[in-house]
Amino acid sequence: VASALGIPLAEHERRAAQLGEQVRAAGLRGAVVFDALRVQYLTGFAFAPTERPIAFVLGPGGERALFVPRLEVEHAAGQTGLDHIAHYPEYPGEPTATNVLAGLLAELGMRNRIGADLDGYPWILGYRGPTLSELTGATVVPIAGAIEDLMAVKSEAEVTCLRESVRWAELAHRLLQRFTRPGASETGVSRRAGMEATVAMLEALGDRYRAGNPFVDGAMAGYRGQIGRNSAIPHTLAGNITFEVGDVLVSGATAPVWGYLSELERTLVIGPPSNEQRRLFDHATAAQQVAFDAIRPGVHCSDVDLAVRAYYDANGLWDRWRHHTGHAIGLRYHEGPFLDLGDHTEIRPGMVFTVEPGLYHPDLGGFRHSDTVLVTEDGIDVLTTYPRDLDALIVPAG
Amino acid sequence: VASALGIPLAEHERRAAQLGEQVRAAGLRGAVVFDALRVQYLTGFAFAPTERPIAFVLGPGGERALFVPRLEVEHAAGQTGLDHIAHYPEYPGEPTATNVLAGLLAELGMRNRIGADLDGYPWILGYRGPTLSELTGATVVPIAGAIEDLMAVKSEAEVTCLRESVRWAELAHRLLQRFTRPGASETGVSRRAGMEATVAMLEALGDRYRAGNPFVDGAMAGYRGQIGRNSAIPHTLAGNITFEVGDVLVSGATAPVWGYLSELERTLVIGPPSNEQRRLFDHATAAQQVAFDAIRPGVHCSDVDLAVRAYYDANGLWDRWRHHTGHAIGLRYHEGPFLDLGDHTEIRPGMVFTVEPGLYHPDLGGFRHSDTVLVTEDGIDVLTTYPRDLDALIVPAG
Repeated sequence: VASALGIPLAEHERRAAQLGEQVRAAGLRGAVVFDALRVQYLTGFAFAPTERPIAFVLGPGGERALFVPRLEVEHAAGQTGLDHIAHYPEYPGEPTATNVLAGLLAELGMRNRIGADLDGYPWILGYRGPTLSELTGATVVPIAGAIEDLMAVKSEAEVTCLRESVRWAELAHRLLQRFTRPGASETGVSRRAGMEATVAMLEALGDRYRAGNPFVDGAMAGYRGQIGRNSAIPHTLAGNITFEVGDVLVSGATAPVWGYLSELERTLVIGPPSNEQRRLFDHATAAQQVAFDAIRPGVHCSDVDLAVRAYYDANGLWDRWRHHTGHAIGLRYHEGPFLDLGDHTEIRPGMVFTVEPGLYHPDLGGFRHSDTVLVTEDGIDVLTTYPRDLDALIVPAG
Repeated sequence: VASALGIPLAEHERRAAQLGEQVRAAGLRGAVVFDALRVQYLTGFAFAPTERPIAFVLGPGGERALFVPRLEVEHAAGQTGLDHIAHYPEYPGEPTATNVLAGLLAELGMRNRIGADLDGYPWILGYRGPTLSELTGATVVPIAGAIEDLMAVKSEAEVTCLRESVRWAELAHRLLQRFTRPGASETGVSRRAGMEATVAMLEALGDRYRAGNPFVDGAMAGYRGQIGRNSAIPHTLAGNITFEVGDVLVSGATAPVWGYLSELERTLVIGPPSNEQRRLFDHATAAQQVAFDAIRPGVHCSDVDLAVRAYYDANGLWDRWRHHTGHAIGLRYHEGPFLDLGDHTEIRPGMVFTVEPGLYHPDLGGFRHSDTVLVTEDGIDVLTTYPRDLDALIVPAG
């Protein structure tokens, strides 16, 4: 079924079985998973996390169960095909969610030593509750790292989703660039590009499309305030800026496809770039090429960052440095491992990274491309194809 | 300055001082706050939380400091006016974030017993790290509840933001309703309404507007898949549904204003409602009125839910129940306390709640309005003004 999109339920079953093997090998009587994206990874249940606790429970014999509030019962059953769904009426409610969870764990014979990604449901959106240790009296052994390690190597189905994400992120970005002009406002341009790309994507993919993300329903592209001098602040949240000639812009585009997110970022300039802008643009692009050349199976994540750092050294660019080379990406828009001198994880085929070294100057702006790359048997496949050269990224001044 | 929007820095200072008094009264040598919205509440620093740890640190003598990655230094200083900003280069990085945090706490004399909202930075977006107890060897006393309790009673400046949020949520909703028609698609209609309302808001408010939210840049309105039979699933994430005559729709609209979010939801019907649909619509609206009448200072949150539950009892509606009456709202779109039979918090002036009892029928759909109400000295002020009657909420069939 070459034209299929999405993660087959059998793949979720396989992921849970892999985790189950590790849990048993560690001598644990089952595991509880609270983090929403980890639950989605292990079961296919994509939901909006709220103060109403939700968990995936893996029994000592590999039993798979979900623990949800009443209002998610039909939703969870429909998405996962699981038939063991324990529910509580409401949060805080009576009987309480924690009592129902304790009952489910007792029913599955989970006691003494159990695994969990978090010691209890996190206190999000007003939830307050006991830790899992307090609730059960069991020794709770952390297993978040084990799940994250499984998530770091993508399957063929996951890569297919990421490639589809790139397709529509690129359309949104192309429209963003086309609509950007002096005098227009960031928010209007960004919203229009996202809307038009999303409508096109939904028309093209029809029922095969599922966002799989509780917060984003389609393609998006924008600048997140990284415009003009503000582009020198990598995570600024300034909004509603009006474009001016001479602005350096750092864009960003993505689209969730069955939950999977690619990342595409480009540095654009409105009107002819100055020589100083051109110099920083060229250095940022060259530093990115250094990273592309360094990524291959068997090297460590830190090796890639060290190669980029050598480029900063050689070109006297340390005043312009603000962050490492990149990060893994998948169901989360940032995930581990990191292309960072402090991360010594070995790079393996199937890992997917953003590659995005940047240069930041308080007066000239920020300079950063970000591409999403898949690690192959002997190097990388750059999934994002959007032009990287300055000529293609100059917005006409008039 | 009646026309001002936003939270003055003096108010952030006052909030931190209130927390500091409680921390000292509990015999703690300072406190660390990791949750992003709690940091925003206490300092005014609105940022995108990532794997790079950020914290607000309150010293034993009331000293206020921020702990951020290098790339957030200028951003944090610019937004908060705080001059004590400790930074680490990068995550995972060298030196590590946790070493820099340990140094900051030592410098402030924070040891033995300290408060914290979380025992260490949460493992979000790939962050992995030690608990605060492990890092410092100190006894870490939970203070999340104390901060949440401060957040639950809104100031005048916060209510002003919420009123402004309502204004633009209502515009987005009005456009959503106008664009909704048989044959149109949910996503296109929702994106267009959000874009047009946001552009209007930014033109009207100009520089006075700040979203203050890392994920939403303006007004939004949509159905989140709660269309036709899917509207019977309160938190469904289905997308790209085409509207049909006879559909019951449950909408939602909001707009972040300096981080503050109101909530407006309405039940709409495309074409003339059936008698059964009209009956459930009327019951949902009447149950909401029961809640409005029950909310006043001095009663408990549970009393409000019990009053609504008595309405379900009296009218034989329990098969249609899925969730409690409502929740507090502010910087978070859900926060405590909850209008729920299990929450015995006393209602106080300045609290802001959504009021949204619902009825759900697998064939007919979901029926729920949500309004945002401010608790006054003797009752409530319903901040949302959008029509609630069925005649105003019927979308023409042709």
